[in-house]
Amino acid sequence: MKCPKDLFPTRLERKVDMFGRLDPVVHTPESEWDKGPLTREQVRDFDERGFLFFESFFQKEEMEKFIEELQDYEKDENVKASEGAILEPGKEEIRSIFGIHEFSERFDRLTRDPRLLAMVQQLLNSDVYIHQSRINYKPGFKGKGFNWHSDFETWHSEDGMPAMRCLSCSIVMTDNDEFNGPLMLVPGSQNKFVPCVGRTPEDNYKESLKSQNLGVPDEASLTELMDNHGIEAPKGPAGSLIMFECNTLHGSNANMSCWPRSNLFFVYNSVRNTLVEPFCGNKPRPQFLANRKNLEPLTPV
Amino acid sequence: MKCPKDLFPTRLERKVDMFGRLDPVVHTPESEWDKGPLTREQVRDFDERGFLFFESFFQKEEMEKFIEELQDYEKDENVKASEGAILEPGKEEIRSIFGIHEFSERFDRLTRDPRLLAMVQQLLNSDVYIHQSRINYKPGFKGKGFNWHSDFETWHSEDGMPAMRCLSCSIVMTDNDEFNGPLMLVPGSQNKFVPCVGRTPEDNYKESLKSQNLGVPDEASLTELMDNHGIEAPKGPAGSLIMFECNTLHGSNANMSCWPRSNLFFVYNSVRNTLVEPFCGNKPRPQFLANRKNLEPLTPV
Repeated sequence: MKCPKDLFPTRLERKVDMFGRLDPVVHTPESEWDKGPLTREQVRDFDERGFLFFESFFQKEEMEKFIEELQDYEKDENVKASEGAILEPGKEEIRSIFGIHEFSERFDRLTRDPRLLAMVQQLLNSDVYIHQSRINYKPGFKGKGFNWHSDFETWHSEDGMPAMRCLSCSIVMTDNDEFNGPLMLVPGSQNKFVPCVGRTPEDNYKESLKSQNLGVPDEASLTELMDNHGIEAPKGPAGSLIMFECNTLHGSNANMSCWPRSNLFFVYNSVRNTLVEPFCGNKPRPQFLANRKNLEPLTPV
Repeated sequence: MKCPKDLFPTRLERKVDMFGRLDPVVHTPESEWDKGPLTREQVRDFDERGFLFFESFFQKEEMEKFIEELQDYEKDENVKASEGAILEPGKEEIRSIFGIHEFSERFDRLTRDPRLLAMVQQLLNSDVYIHQSRINYKPGFKGKGFNWHSDFETWHSEDGMPAMRCLSCSIVMTDNDEFNGPLMLVPGSQNKFVPCVGRTPEDNYKESLKSQNLGVPDEASLTELMDNHGIEAPKGPAGSLIMFECNTLHGSNANMSCWPRSNLFFVYNSVRNTLVEPFCGNKPRPQFLANRKNLEPLTPV
């Protein structure tokens, strides 16, 4: 693995101002935005705002088999004991399961859904593979929030992802509403990289996946971005889809309701953007967090 | 002080099922609901749902002087050091200031606003006095949430409030939106009393005002009430008003935004419902939490 220059310095000793992103948001040249499947307007929307929302992209009924499978995992002590299962801070409840597509054929097939894959390839203008998959559980009353962050900031520093040519598909497995801690995004924030303060300890992920304190943008930068662009929380029934760019700032609040919120995340990375050594200088994180092995381009099922 | 029978047992050793409230929600007989200032429809709404929302009840401009005064308090070390000032858990930020109407003439006058007072008197069918006043600050990024609770549950057990003839006016001092932790209520929940488990330690308020763990309804009861009635979070510009019955379950999430959320609460109690000895058996809480001295009926300014 060659180590290219670190174009996105972060986890620093002292504050450095945010700066404009270096990579395009949409990697397909503008002259080709009409090619589909996304319309030119949708492509422009993603380019400007850093995310797209599709209410009921999948039918609720299509989601049911997935939800049943998840419920089995929740009861499965082997899953709970596996390295990819992250429990809530100080609790027994599952917070996240990573690498779900690696042990479930059903979820693996879903990563290769033809409609998903075509949209992702259109935006990244490239073949893609799965960098990471995860389920974030947020059980009623108990599920805690996620602090504001850019995924890319972590994937760059802790996993050695060179550039911003990557995006997440978040599929809502249970109805998301205002009270069960839906995903919140800062539209337009994908256009700025916010370097974060604080050196990364080895095995940081063991803490950060429960409660992220490193890699959280400073309040002044967040305030500037929120004052300029606001915050949005797309909400919809099970089967809805949020596609968001790897540098779009996002977070979520605790689940105050009795209704569970489970969201599935597939992270698609361009095959031209595979991982190098982590830029923070630590050893690579485990495979379940940052795939370095299965880099074959995904093909539709 | 006579000690009447404890009609609302709570803080128990073991779980007791919720039961129907004993007191009316609206104390004025239905035949007199037309007398105003609230319309019959508004009175019925309060009766059925346990709260009323008035967008922009006060003009935003009217609120500005209050907000300026609050900002002075935030900087005032004497206020911060006073017993009525509650700081965030483990932090320096002010979470709440109690008894605001006792040291501010401006806020004292507001408790006697003729429009507020007439509505409160109509619903409680009685003269009223201030049982408690407070500002809940929720600074951007830092302000934490409040767990689900019935105010009456605490005021009954810890303060000796005999019956449900009391309501809160919450005046929104800063714009409330979906992201800065607005007040959430369970409509209709005022009709059930949910006894809570767990004996109350002496001086419980020193912890409970930072983070409430006692007096939180069990999840099964909350789920039943939420499944039946849903959750609502009225939102509006500074100057908006939420009037809610003392037994209506409410809570709020953390402030995920950069925008502060400050809400003012005036708790009006009927002069026929003044405090007796705390039913939990502890010594009375301080005056700033539970007024036992100034019981003169409020008159409009």
